[in-house]
Amino acid sequence: MNVENEGSGAKNVYLGAIEAGGTKFVCAVGDRNGNVRERVTFPTTTPEETMRHVIDFFRQYDLSALGIGSFGPVDLNRNSATYGYITSTPKQKWANFNFVGEMKRHLNVPIGFDTDVNAAALGEHLWGAAQGLDSCIYITVGTGIGVGAIVENQLLHGLTHPEMGHILIRRHPDDPFPGNCPFHGDCLEGMASGPAIEKRWGKKGAELAGRTEVWELEAFYLAQSIANYILILSPEKIIIGGGVMKQEQLLPNIRRHVIDFLHGYVQHETILQHIDEYIVSPGLGDNAGICGALALAIQALDKQ
Amino acid sequence: MNVENEGSGAKNVYLGAIEAGGTKFVCAVGDRNGNVRERVTFPTTTPEETMRHVIDFFRQYDLSALGIGSFGPVDLNRNSATYGYITSTPKQKWANFNFVGEMKRHLNVPIGFDTDVNAAALGEHLWGAAQGLDSCIYITVGTGIGVGAIVENQLLHGLTHPEMGHILIRRHPDDPFPGNCPFHGDCLEGMASGPAIEKRWGKKGAELAGRTEVWELEAFYLAQSIANYILILSPEKIIIGGGVMKQEQLLPNIRRHVIDFLHGYVQHETILQHIDEYIVSPGLGDNAGICGALALAIQALDKQ
Repeated sequence: MNVENEGSGAKNVYLGAIEAGGTKFVCAVGDRNGNVRERVTFPTTTPEETMRHVIDFFRQYDLSALGIGSFGPVDLNRNSATYGYITSTPKQKWANFNFVGEMKRHLNVPIGFDTDVNAAALGEHLWGAAQGLDSCIYITVGTGIGVGAIVENQLLHGLTHPEMGHILIRRHPDDPFPGNCPFHGDCLEGMASGPAIEKRWGKKGAELAGRTEVWELEAFYLAQSIANYILILSPEKIIIGGGVMKQEQLLPNIRRHVIDFLHGYVQHETILQHIDEYIVSPGLGDNAGICGALALAIQALDKQ
Repeated sequence: MNVENEGSGAKNVYLGAIEAGGTKFVCAVGDRNGNVRERVTFPTTTPEETMRHVIDFFRQYDLSALGIGSFGPVDLNRNSATYGYITSTPKQKWANFNFVGEMKRHLNVPIGFDTDVNAAALGEHLWGAAQGLDSCIYITVGTGIGVGAIVENQLLHGLTHPEMGHILIRRHPDDPFPGNCPFHGDCLEGMASGPAIEKRWGKKGAELAGRTEVWELEAFYLAQSIANYILILSPEKIIIGGGVMKQEQLLPNIRRHVIDFLHGYVQHETILQHIDEYIVSPGLGDNAGICGALALAIQALDKQ
C-alpha cells in the first residue's frame, strides 16, 4: 500500500523550514520549488516551550531536510564548538541555545542553518526579486535592522555573519535623537529601527503615517546606509522589507536620497536611470524568510 | 635545438602581469607560484606612450597569459560593449581607454582583468597575509583610497566593482577640513587620502611624522571605515598598505579605534583578542599588486 496516494493523513516526504524571529517562529513544510504546503506560527517564548511546538509540528512529516533562518547573533562556523547556536542575543532565555543540536536530536535529517536575513536574501535570489542575478541584498527594517547578502551566487559569510544593521552613519544635523542601540547608540539600527522611530517621535510608526518629516528623516538614514552597501558590495538588486517599510511613502524617498548620496559616482544605468527597479520591495512579500529557510533545506539536502 | 636551454636570451614561456597605476605601470613576467622573474616600471603618461613601452617589454617573452590590475573605474562586465575599458577616470587621457582590447591586439593570449586593489587582494589571498583563508580585504591608502575583497574564495564583483574608498563617514567633531573628493567632498577618500592629509595640514604626510594629532585623526577615519567593512563584509583578514601606511604609528592607532567603534558588538576572539594579527600590513609588501596581476593571468589561463 502506498500511503502517499491514500490521502489518509499519513506521513509524506517533505522539506521543513523554520523562520525563527524574536516575536514568532514560522514553521512550514514545502517542496523543492519553493511551494509552501503547510505553515504554522508559534510565539517566541522560552526555548523549551517554543521548541516543543516546533518539534510536534515537524513530527507529523517525514522530513528529508530542514532549513533554519534564525534571529541572532548565531554561530555559523562549522569548525566551532558552538556551531548552530544562537549566541549573545539580548533575549536572555535564548542566549547560548543550541538550535541545530536541539533539532538534530529530534529530527535526524540534514539541517541548513543561517541568519534570518541571509535566508530571506536566498529566498529572493531563488524565487523572488533577484531571480537570475549573481548578487543581491535583503534589508529588513522592523524591531531591528538586518541585512543578508548574496555575492557571486553564494550567501555572504566570513569571520562571522555580517551585521550591517549596526554600521556607523552620519547623523542628520537637525536630529537631536541620541539613538537607542545598546551597543553603539546612534548606529543605523539605533537611529532608524521601528523602536527608534517610536522613541524619537513618541508614537509608533503606523500612527505617524501623515507626518512627512518622519519618513524624510527615516529615508535619509536608510539611504545613506544603502549608498554605503552599494559602494562596498555593489549588489545587483536591493530588496527592502520589514514592518517599517509598510509606509509606502518611504521607498520613493529612499531611492531619491540614494541618488543624492552617491552623487553620480557609480556610473551605471541601473542606478542612474532605473533605480525604481533597483531598490525594490520583496518579490515574495512576507514569505521571503520562510521560503529562504526552505532553500536552506534544499542546500543541506544537496550537500550531504 | 631547444632555445630555452641555450641561455641565449631567446623567448621563454612566461605569464605576464601589469599593475597599472595612476603614476606608474609595473610590468612583470613570472610563474604559477608567484615568482616574479623580471620586472620593469614605466611612468603613466599617455596611453600611446606608456602602452608602447608595455608592449615592447612583453614582446620579449612568449607569454601564455596576461593579468592586469588597473586603476579605475574599469568595466568588468563581460557582457558589456566596453568590457576591459578604463571608463570615467579623472585622468582625461585614459578615460574610455580599451585596455584589454589594446593588449589583445598585440599579444593574443588569455587576459585576466580587474581593479588594482582586487588584484592585490587576490595576491595576498594566494601568497600573502590571507593565505588559506576564505575571505580578506586589501586596503590601499595613498593618492586615493581603494579596497579589494575576496569573499567565499572569490573576487568580489557585482553591479560594478566596489568603490569602498568613497563610503560616507562620520566627521570628527574637531576637524574643520571640508574634504577634497570631487564627487562627495568629505567621503573617506576626501578626508583621509594622502592629498587630503597634505591639504588639511599644509605639508606632505612624510613631513608630519612627529605630529601625533595627524595620525590620530587619520586613524579615526580609517578605523571607522574598517569597522563598517567588518560589519558589512566580515572579512577574515584586513590587509592595509599604500604610501600613507608607511607611517608606522598609524597601524596600532587604527587597531585601537576599530575596537572602540565596534564596541564589543562583534564577539569574535580574532577581533577581541588578536587584532594585531587581524589588521595587518601586506604579506607581500609592495609586491601585492604585481603578484595579484600574475594571479589574474593564472586564472585567465585556467579558465580558457
